[in-house]
Amino acid sequence: MEKLKKDEIEKALKNLDGWEYNENAIHTTIEFKDFKEAFSAMTRIAFEAEAQQHHPEWTNVYNNLEINLSTHDAGGVTQKDIEMATTIETLLFS
Amino acid sequence: MEKLKKDEIEKALKNLDGWEYNENAIHTTIEFKDFKEAFSAMTRIAFEAEAQQHHPEWTNVYNNLEINLSTHDAGGVTQKDIEMATTIETLLFS
Repeated sequence: MEKLKKDEIEKALKNLDGWEYNENAIHTTIEFKDFKEAFSAMTRIAFEAEAQQHHPEWTNVYNNLEINLSTHDAGGVTQKDIEMATTIETLLFS
Repeated sequence: MEKLKKDEIEKALKNLDGWEYNENAIHTTIEFKDFKEAFSAMTRIAFEAEAQQHHPEWTNVYNNLEINLSTHDAGGVTQKDIEMATTIETLLFS
């Protein structure tokens, strides 16, 4: 899986809502109603991450969820990360 | 809920395995077999956190889980955090 170039990543992120690229990863922060809503979303994402065998680095504090995606083996952002971000957006917001 | 003193916290942590106190919070890092094991543990902890109405700040990367506990309203570590850490230890290691 090949590392994407900055302009490729930024182009892909235009199709998504609330993702930023920096430090060789793409990032988003999502605010939920409460902890239960946040953790429910995490559970749905967890199953997809496992299915895609591509796992986020994520931090949860109460109703807040920060997600960072990158492809360790490629040392940056690959198509796998764009796909995972797209999956997350579809799961949560459509 | 009153903020505990440093020596009270360190005394309490002696009864737990792998927790450290610094920067006004207690911290542990747990390594699991894989993502599924890590997220399963998180799910068990999530239900307890919700029941105790005391939620961790936690970061997961694949099989790794970092947990930080503090009591926001008290500006530090309280008995609630010691209880939550004890709950986590009991859930996962007993």
